[in-house]
Amino acid sequence: MISSIPTTIKFLQQPTSEAWIHQALSHLDIILLDHSHCERKAAGVALNLMFRYPSSEKLVRSLTAIAREELEHFEQVNQILEARGIPLRSLAPPPYGAGLNKQIRIQEPDRLLDSLLVSALIEARSHERLGLLGACCPDPELAEFYRRLMASEARHYGVYWVLATTYCDRSVVEKRLEELAAVESSLLSTLHPEPRIHS
Amino acid sequence: MISSIPTTIKFLQQPTSEAWIHQALSHLDIILLDHSHCERKAAGVALNLMFRYPSSEKLVRSLTAIAREELEHFEQVNQILEARGIPLRSLAPPPYGAGLNKQIRIQEPDRLLDSLLVSALIEARSHERLGLLGACCPDPELAEFYRRLMASEARHYGVYWVLATTYCDRSVVEKRLEELAAVESSLLSTLHPEPRIHS
Repeated sequence: MISSIPTTIKFLQQPTSEAWIHQALSHLDIILLDHSHCERKAAGVALNLMFRYPSSEKLVRSLTAIAREELEHFEQVNQILEARGIPLRSLAPPPYGAGLNKQIRIQEPDRLLDSLLVSALIEARSHERLGLLGACCPDPELAEFYRRLMASEARHYGVYWVLATTYCDRSVVEKRLEELAAVESSLLSTLHPEPRIHS
Repeated sequence: MISSIPTTIKFLQQPTSEAWIHQALSHLDIILLDHSHCERKAAGVALNLMFRYPSSEKLVRSLTAIAREELEHFEQVNQILEARGIPLRSLAPPPYGAGLNKQIRIQEPDRLLDSLLVSALIEARSHERLGLLGACCPDPELAEFYRRLMASEARHYGVYWVLATTYCDRSVVEKRLEELAAVESSLLSTLHPEPRIHS
């Protein structure tokens, strides 16, 4: 089923494995819950960057819009959870986020560049995976919801990419993206046993 | 001028001094810039609480709405700054926030209660001060903007109060609010020399 949906997301070096989609479809309640955490975390990351670079006008403007949209999606996922009687609860995160954050260098301007590209990659992967859920989920209401959201994730990784090229030289951005994208794909090369958006 | 606007905000033990309004009206550009930081910080505080208590349904639902609204106001203040040619830049915070945060006890459930009440007090003070700006600001566009925003701040402190009484016994909440409100008023009893929303 998955083979009919080619990955057209250039940012990503490896497409999601068929094993992930089977795992996700077999645990849709957990995936929904984890998705809620992902939206809240994405809003938190955008807000943290706004705190760290308060005088970077374009960054602040773009990330305010992203944070607002992530919170809107967080609310929407939580409404679906509520309608399905799934109580909110914390979930142990998969190693994906911590693995990517370890790649962020400490010195500026590397720190800004890496932060933006890590967010771009996470959004790109979310776009790909929500797209897979939108295409393969047997529940029509959920499938429709995922299809609506995947368009936003696509816009978001575009925004992070544009910000990276605004504040850093394009050739530097492209080279670093390639390095980080290799790490990103390698972090997902072994399926994490607990079902997550980024397992 | 200020004496005609009685403080009707029961949460606050002392009304804002006339000295503050004179200081604020003499430095409207700085007040606008600080207001922008306040809105971003308020969104950050709401989000942090959602991170800390991810399974508290009512808290998560209420604070998602608050964080979304604070980000909307952040965007609006930034648009005013842009229209007035005031570039975004960081500002040294007044001692108010750190002074209040020092009051938050470490052990749960005290930590939750204190966090909610500190936010309630900050929102109540913002409500009072934006109201004063709305009444006294000679610039009609800004005055109108402040009047619109003060209504939200009023709703926000109500939300934090309701959350406190949801998760803690009402008599405990009332006693602790009294203690924290005394600290809050005392932190503002000497005007901070740098003009801020909470100077």
